[in-house]
Amino acid sequence: MSERLRFTLADTDAPRQWYNLLADFPEPLPPPLHPGTKEPVTPEMMTAIFPENLVAQEMCSDRWVDIPDEVRDIYALWRPTPLLRAVRLEKALQTPAHIYYKYEGVSPAGSHKPNTAVPQAYYNKLAGTKRLATETGAGQWGSSLAFACKVFGLECVVYMVKVSFQQKPYRKLMMQTWGATVHPSPSEVTDFGRKMLAEDPHCNGSLGIAISEAIEDTVKHPGTKYSLGSVLNHVCLHQTVIGQEAIKQMELAGEAPDVIVGCVGGGSNFAGISFPFIGQKIKAGKNYRIIAVEPESCPSITKGDLRYDFGDTAEMTPLLMMHTLGHKFMPPSIHSGGLRYHGMAPMVSHARKLGLIEATSFPQLKIFEAGVLFARTEGIVPAPEPCHAIAAVIEEAVKCREEGRKKVILFNLCGHGMLDLPAYDTYLSGKMKDVED
Amino acid sequence: MSERLRFTLADTDAPRQWYNLLADFPEPLPPPLHPGTKEPVTPEMMTAIFPENLVAQEMCSDRWVDIPDEVRDIYALWRPTPLLRAVRLEKALQTPAHIYYKYEGVSPAGSHKPNTAVPQAYYNKLAGTKRLATETGAGQWGSSLAFACKVFGLECVVYMVKVSFQQKPYRKLMMQTWGATVHPSPSEVTDFGRKMLAEDPHCNGSLGIAISEAIEDTVKHPGTKYSLGSVLNHVCLHQTVIGQEAIKQMELAGEAPDVIVGCVGGGSNFAGISFPFIGQKIKAGKNYRIIAVEPESCPSITKGDLRYDFGDTAEMTPLLMMHTLGHKFMPPSIHSGGLRYHGMAPMVSHARKLGLIEATSFPQLKIFEAGVLFARTEGIVPAPEPCHAIAAVIEEAVKCREEGRKKVILFNLCGHGMLDLPAYDTYLSGKMKDVED
Repeated sequence: MSERLRFTLADTDAPRQWYNLLADFPEPLPPPLHPGTKEPVTPEMMTAIFPENLVAQEMCSDRWVDIPDEVRDIYALWRPTPLLRAVRLEKALQTPAHIYYKYEGVSPAGSHKPNTAVPQAYYNKLAGTKRLATETGAGQWGSSLAFACKVFGLECVVYMVKVSFQQKPYRKLMMQTWGATVHPSPSEVTDFGRKMLAEDPHCNGSLGIAISEAIEDTVKHPGTKYSLGSVLNHVCLHQTVIGQEAIKQMELAGEAPDVIVGCVGGGSNFAGISFPFIGQKIKAGKNYRIIAVEPESCPSITKGDLRYDFGDTAEMTPLLMMHTLGHKFMPPSIHSGGLRYHGMAPMVSHARKLGLIEATSFPQLKIFEAGVLFARTEGIVPAPEPCHAIAAVIEEAVKCREEGRKKVILFNLCGHGMLDLPAYDTYLSGKMKDVED
Repeated sequence: MSERLRFTLADTDAPRQWYNLLADFPEPLPPPLHPGTKEPVTPEMMTAIFPENLVAQEMCSDRWVDIPDEVRDIYALWRPTPLLRAVRLEKALQTPAHIYYKYEGVSPAGSHKPNTAVPQAYYNKLAGTKRLATETGAGQWGSSLAFACKVFGLECVVYMVKVSFQQKPYRKLMMQTWGATVHPSPSEVTDFGRKMLAEDPHCNGSLGIAISEAIEDTVKHPGTKYSLGSVLNHVCLHQTVIGQEAIKQMELAGEAPDVIVGCVGGGSNFAGISFPFIGQKIKAGKNYRIIAVEPESCPSITKGDLRYDFGDTAEMTPLLMMHTLGHKFMPPSIHSGGLRYHGMAPMVSHARKLGLIEATSFPQLKIFEAGVLFARTEGIVPAPEPCHAIAAVIEEAVKCREEGRKKVILFNLCGHGMLDLPAYDTYLSGKMKDVED
């Protein structure tokens, strides 16, 4: 080979522990509050919807948390994931920058989401849970949990945001193939869903509404617990396998990243790639620029307030200290269903407040332009969500060309776009708008 | 981890040469014949539709052929591919057998097809070709060639069997995202397509018809060459990276396969996994059972004659010595579009004649039953084509249980089924038949 383009980790180098950034934040993370008393929530309050072992993990501040063997056995299906150098994209941009990407699309569901779905299903199984309820946007999370539940023998019910249910029919089929039950949200099967439909029968849904429905389902069905695919501390924790692998793989590549980029919706894939690097930034004084990229039409971290807000529309969750557009915010029907969330993971919000990361946003047409260029140079069709990261990477790489400076850029390609191809069709046929109605 | 389940090859262990079984067959392969003279075709005759360098490779009998650096650079996007142990399937079957699978679904197009699309595009580029024409069944091949053409800067036109064009719309979108032009076949853009449509306006198409259209397109457009995704010697050659990697990975696993299984349509993924093992069988006296598995409704290798026949419906190709159902055979509209071919690769046919491999077939409902079991235990949703291999593996593994014998079974999981999910939906909703009308 002309140059080394792929950096494969040995199976024995797969992480054995998750990395917990909570242990290293220079200021403690503000705790979740009870909406009535405004006091920090106790573990007992959270066990109504989560099993005790995951509540303990949510509140744990140990720096390293062991990954159970049973989880590592399933991770082995797709981990370690590849780190690749995007030389053909570099060439197309005529940039002196070196662009690397971590590719999470090799998982069974096609994204990073199984990294947390598998441990969540495992800990629930251990705790005696029989059935998991969840929400999903684009369906990446719902399909990942459907897969994980099937592997550990749990039932799975998914409330899928209605606009995505319609835009991404294959995701629904995927969940059903893994044996899950899927309802379009707002649905007729919960009180809150019926209430929303009564107010607006054409309601497209949102992650906030779907979360409310899944929580209502949980508290009404004995043996059922709730599972969330982003936002929470334990979800960010599980995703750190991505960044830990990337650190070792960048060492194999013999370069250190100047800039690290990830897209953000709830924040989980961004946390996964960036938190281990942020740990190095805090403890070892490393000088990384770390950039979170979100949709211009759902701009929680770039334009939202940093304040306590509900995680869901029906006000059933504790209050979380996070960047938020307000829990009643109804995001437009963009194709990046995984990024249509009013809030931002408290840990990601905290990292932004402490100046450890930056944030930016792009409109829909720009990110599809970036996605098509990536597909046509590198060969992988990216999901619309990581196209946000790609748009930011291209902007950085073009700046490098203009300034004649080499930089090393790393981003997380958190999923492929095989089930998002109708969105590419809409873009390529010129019918896409920045904000869909 | 409880037991090692993943066997990752180092990047430096990726094959640097393709393995050519032609060098080791105990009897020479009967040559392709000119349909008029019945004399062996000369290289000159083949250069009407193929570039000289690929014609030379088609006729080459060197045991090892170097893989160009430019091809290895692109292979690095997804190769080496994983070898995995299917412990959860073993457990579900309560079998003492150890089941391993080589997973080719991690490629950009989701199957093994880019293994030959990339070198074909590369050699054509080198030879000055501007545009490649091809046919595709399920779309795995067409999308792989679209990807490879885009990477090397060639135009790409694909004639896609009409029933698959309708069943698998996402495959068409994938080709378009990579910049290819896609026509449903029979199409209105070739004489032969128009003739077929005049005879039967509802004709579902077949690989044989689509090949005829692509060849007609090739000879009528200057600068255009034809590319075939299976059947030919050079295609089988390119796919041997699969089996070469698998041999090294089985060594990592510390076991030798007793049984090696692959599905067959034109024969390319089967050739890929099996030819390097057949080489060992011939030269090192290894005692592998090697099984080719095809659809019961398109049974070329189990029920077809071994004789000279055309590769296409319009009788434009040379005559090939192969197992065939006759070049006018119209296969039923099963969901395994990649296996709807009347013939079988001459090299695979020859291996069968020499007793180096066995063959068997399964009906459609049986293979989807196997695919769903695999998806729900192992977690990967397989394409319908390799579900044929899985059905045979399950049969073997159950026999092991019944006989109380441990065997080591290896199969090629040549692609995932993400773009075949509507077929799973048809199966799970009870609407599938063994033979669709």
